[in-house]
Amino acid sequence: MMLKAPVLLMAPLALFAHDLMPVPARIQPGQGRLALDQNFSFIQLNGYREPRLEAAAARLVEHVARKTGIPMMPAMGDLPPNAPLVVYCDHASAPVQNVGEDESYRLTVTAMGARLDAPNPLGVLRGMETFLQLVDLDAAGFGVPAVTIEDHPRFPWRGLMLDVGRHFIPLQDVERTLDAMAALKFNVFHWHLSENQGFRIESKLFPKLQELGSDGQYYTQDQAREVIAYARARGIRVIPEFDMPGHATAWFVGYPGLASAPGPYRIERQWGVFDPAMDPTREETYQFLDAFIGEMAALFPDEYFHIGGDEVNGRQWDASPRIQEFKRAHGLAGNEALQAWFTRRVQTIVAKHGKKMIGWDEILTPGMPHGILVQSWRGPQALAEAARQGVTGILSNGYYLDLYHSAARHYAVDPLGGAAAGLTAAEKSLVLGGEACMWSEFVSPEVLDLRVWPRAAAIAERLWSPADVTDVADMYRRLAAVSRGLEWIGLRHVSAYQRMLERLAAGGPIEPVRVLAEVVEQVKDYGRGAARPYTSLTPLNRLVDAVQPFSGAAVRFAALVDTLRPEDLPQIRQWLTLWRDNDARLAPVMARSALLAENAAISRNLSAIAAAGLEALDRLQNTQPRAPGWFERQTALLDRARRPQAELLLSVEAPIRKLVEAAR
Amino acid sequence: MMLKAPVLLMAPLALFAHDLMPVPARIQPGQGRLALDQNFSFIQLNGYREPRLEAAAARLVEHVARKTGIPMMPAMGDLPPNAPLVVYCDHASAPVQNVGEDESYRLTVTAMGARLDAPNPLGVLRGMETFLQLVDLDAAGFGVPAVTIEDHPRFPWRGLMLDVGRHFIPLQDVERTLDAMAALKFNVFHWHLSENQGFRIESKLFPKLQELGSDGQYYTQDQAREVIAYARARGIRVIPEFDMPGHATAWFVGYPGLASAPGPYRIERQWGVFDPAMDPTREETYQFLDAFIGEMAALFPDEYFHIGGDEVNGRQWDASPRIQEFKRAHGLAGNEALQAWFTRRVQTIVAKHGKKMIGWDEILTPGMPHGILVQSWRGPQALAEAARQGVTGILSNGYYLDLYHSAARHYAVDPLGGAAAGLTAAEKSLVLGGEACMWSEFVSPEVLDLRVWPRAAAIAERLWSPADVTDVADMYRRLAAVSRGLEWIGLRHVSAYQRMLERLAAGGPIEPVRVLAEVVEQVKDYGRGAARPYTSLTPLNRLVDAVQPFSGAAVRFAALVDTLRPEDLPQIRQWLTLWRDNDARLAPVMARSALLAENAAISRNLSAIAAAGLEALDRLQNTQPRAPGWFERQTALLDRARRPQAELLLSVEAPIRKLVEAAR
Repeated sequence: MMLKAPVLLMAPLALFAHDLMPVPARIQPGQGRLALDQNFSFIQLNGYREPRLEAAAARLVEHVARKTGIPMMPAMGDLPPNAPLVVYCDHASAPVQNVGEDESYRLTVTAMGARLDAPNPLGVLRGMETFLQLVDLDAAGFGVPAVTIEDHPRFPWRGLMLDVGRHFIPLQDVERTLDAMAALKFNVFHWHLSENQGFRIESKLFPKLQELGSDGQYYTQDQAREVIAYARARGIRVIPEFDMPGHATAWFVGYPGLASAPGPYRIERQWGVFDPAMDPTREETYQFLDAFIGEMAALFPDEYFHIGGDEVNGRQWDASPRIQEFKRAHGLAGNEALQAWFTRRVQTIVAKHGKKMIGWDEILTPGMPHGILVQSWRGPQALAEAARQGVTGILSNGYYLDLYHSAARHYAVDPLGGAAAGLTAAEKSLVLGGEACMWSEFVSPEVLDLRVWPRAAAIAERLWSPADVTDVADMYRRLAAVSRGLEWIGLRHVSAYQRMLERLAAGGPIEPVRVLAEVVEQVKDYGRGAARPYTSLTPLNRLVDAVQPFSGAAVRFAALVDTLRPEDLPQIRQWLTLWRDNDARLAPVMARSALLAENAAISRNLSAIAAAGLEALDRLQNTQPRAPGWFERQTALLDRARRPQAELLLSVEAPIRKLVEAAR
Repeated sequence: MMLKAPVLLMAPLALFAHDLMPVPARIQPGQGRLALDQNFSFIQLNGYREPRLEAAAARLVEHVARKTGIPMMPAMGDLPPNAPLVVYCDHASAPVQNVGEDESYRLTVTAMGARLDAPNPLGVLRGMETFLQLVDLDAAGFGVPAVTIEDHPRFPWRGLMLDVGRHFIPLQDVERTLDAMAALKFNVFHWHLSENQGFRIESKLFPKLQELGSDGQYYTQDQAREVIAYARARGIRVIPEFDMPGHATAWFVGYPGLASAPGPYRIERQWGVFDPAMDPTREETYQFLDAFIGEMAALFPDEYFHIGGDEVNGRQWDASPRIQEFKRAHGLAGNEALQAWFTRRVQTIVAKHGKKMIGWDEILTPGMPHGILVQSWRGPQALAEAARQGVTGILSNGYYLDLYHSAARHYAVDPLGGAAAGLTAAEKSLVLGGEACMWSEFVSPEVLDLRVWPRAAAIAERLWSPADVTDVADMYRRLAAVSRGLEWIGLRHVSAYQRMLERLAAGGPIEPVRVLAEVVEQVKDYGRGAARPYTSLTPLNRLVDAVQPFSGAAVRFAALVDTLRPEDLPQIRQWLTLWRDNDARLAPVMARSALLAENAAISRNLSAIAAAGLEALDRLQNTQPRAPGWFERQTALLDRARRPQAELLLSVEAPIRKLVEAAR
């Protein structure tokens, strides 16, 4: 059906306001609206059928019921003759979902009904998420606006990497993450399963890996199979990563013989790059890895297998005379060459077990076969370099969610931007997409959703939508709708935030805590880890853990200050007054809460710069005399307030500075 | 250990401020505070041990971790030699928990550690919930204040009835309800499993009961066993109710021969009392019930079995010449006598299967054996009457959560109050306690927690705590802490409310919706069902479904108006201004939301009476001249605003009226 459909003349996106994210490839508004009621309990599945499609249909009904609050009763028996949504699926998808498999769909909604066509179940899954996002409430009730959408992804590889090594993330939290990924049309779950701080999956061949390397916090193989099935039901591939030869301390607790120094080893509790690394010179290392990779290759069906390969500091190798002798004997000039030797051996093993190898930038060395894939954490330059060598790649640089950047900043990063923009068309086709990365130094199950969502949705859109979909304001508007939609399907980024503020308030009033929370954001990049000692056991229950790295209030305030329209001045004054007065309200709460005590300085700073902003406003409105030195004093105040306090920044410092400068 | 402990001289409750709910029988503050940290991952279990206690200890660790945000890692291996909490359990509890089984415990907390002593696991479970409630955050960090608590329940029967017949409540929602019950020391889950609108459990003997009587929405026997085990793990008995001979339409869909008129029958979709009733004159009815009750008596281990018995309107019996002839032949004067005949037959069957029968008031007829238990929905008079006849009883009149009464109103109802106050001590001992009842005409899974929690906690306290614990203001203070605590263990009364307001706002600003939501409450008693047509398929997604039947904002406002202290006048003015101006903010949102449209009148009324309140304030502050007829006009306005709109009342009408009267 899909292939025979006539090509429609599609209207520009701007003509049709919608909350869709990612924005579809083509969208054509129609006339009228499909009303939704209890009849939506029945979705008709035509053409190719399989249990996955039936489950997806049931899930869509359930999600529409949650979003609307309309009870759907599939087993009522008195069903209408015509289903509101008819699905046509042409044929099966691959037994194991592969890269570049067709994910296209066509969704047509009229006032009379909706029709979803797709070549295979992947497109049906994507189209169903689009349908769910289209459901809204207007003055007439719940419904879906009439529309025709023809959609397909820009990149075939749209992933989210979750580091469950540094902090273990329980099964139900992983599955909740997959729910959200499906909602945003992500199609790769990259499961970072081993780290210095933990080895997180059961090996039956080498049980001391999980028994001694995980504090008891690991997934059984049955649980891994459950996750794989859960992901496949949502059109998501699962790629395991076992980081080697570095980032591997947890392996050595049970198997010290793998390391390049004798041990014994303990599970690492600190964050950072550490010395232990596998011994690339001993055949026993490769025998172990052959058996282990064979076991895991059988467990994880995806054609790709991630071996990490990042951040080997080489100190254990340098310290070992035997390893130095090996390098000399084999003409390996430095540790990079030694790691390349290791990587080529591992690639051979991975290939023997029928998989393609993925690794971080470091694996890209001369002589590596073309079948590998490079995941670039260093930058677009590495990705372009790989493509020029004929090696496929995906971008993660710019998509690190642990660096507390805004959604807008991630949104601006394009896998085919930067150094990749100069590639030939053939080379560009080797850039398969990208992956958002959630490294978990500061991620516990409680804050997981706060750290990943809704920000990751901006990356999902960058990887799915046409390259010219770049309107940041519109992205943020739709991100707010995505955020609400994710809570309906069970995500907790809103409810966890609320509960964490209540915890911080220690039984006192929560409002002044919220006022502060909504104008602060975390220090960026690696500032957080540098500010104070952290271990894997440090509680993540402070204000810096509760807030989002993006202040919606600050952005709205900044927009008002940017234009400074007379009619906005009362609103500006109201906000500044709220902030100026908040410290007096918050101080007694902070005095009774050990968790909030560290925020005294930033609360005082907020109060002080808000007062400065009010004075600026008075000057702008000519109600206050111009005192000499006023501007310099306010600037000094703002400079002080710009410095991080308890790992937090004041998001409103910049717009208040602008106001002060305007009043100079 | 428990029994040998010296009797302490306990201080009056007022000397020790705490958030405990229910208030313990005796509490003695100590010196200092036990600090809580990651060492709490280990609880030492001494004395009698069983898997239930180990699971309870793991749950307490998990709940403390959630409340504090401190990660607990039981398998770390480097545990401290002294556990912060040591439990001593003397002996096992009964294989099937029975009425009046010892639930006492003694909890001693010092700065050095905590100790929990109980005769059996029930007391350990209760004491662990007390410990969890004691965990708080202060200026020094998380900890538990030093205290000695000796505690036991006032009544042995403290139940919550959940009607899963009118709306099906899925398994996970039932289990979540059990979590909350355990937190409040409820010990009976009364599972109302059959109704006109649905038969909710699998019968293997009579499968058409669930196959034709449930729309596919029922629990399997395995699921029932899971619920029973889940409840037992939390010290909660599970009592099934199969309502007969009325409220039984759903049985007759599959088995019309049970009814007193030929049928056919369909699952009832309306609410109310309906004509269909079992035929009490045919032996086949009793043969069916004998087999069915035998099957269910084997599934549910509790010694009690609930047969309903309420609200038979007798119309099918009156219409049947054969049944009329039966009455004449057996000298049964009226339908009450006929139902008594039926009930005695059923009681014989229940007893034959080793169970004691429970029924609603109607089962109390002359000649009924003393071993039964009467659950009074009609009032304390019936309970007193039963006790005088030597029959045990529990109170539910006054504890109907579906009537939208305040927690304070339920709190004031005492099983030994009213007519029962005049009973002798021996008679009083037959009043075993009470049950909160959640009839589910207006309860979907989404709003379940909003309808039950936190209000039911006030009933839990009435049934557990000493009779003289009656301070309403203190109850509300502690109820707020309970509400936060319940969200930590997974309840959704806060998060569901938030999401429902967002749904109502239809993508518009949520704040004006919240301002209105926080000053309205539902019409009381059976006003809601009377106001408009409802069926079991009606969506429960309106403002009336989202709000609590109690407005905290209104109570705080009323308190300020009651005293009218000069220093509170700015706060009163601020609230009134917010409410007066809210309609202008809400109107554009309502215009775009079909769900909110019905709230236009109450929003306008709020604005109008808030303006009246502001005028009253001006008069009280002598800033406005006294216009003739002002008081009468405002009173007329308030009278209009007192009328329900869209099944909602304005909670602030009464305090604003008071303000207007003060300004007369």
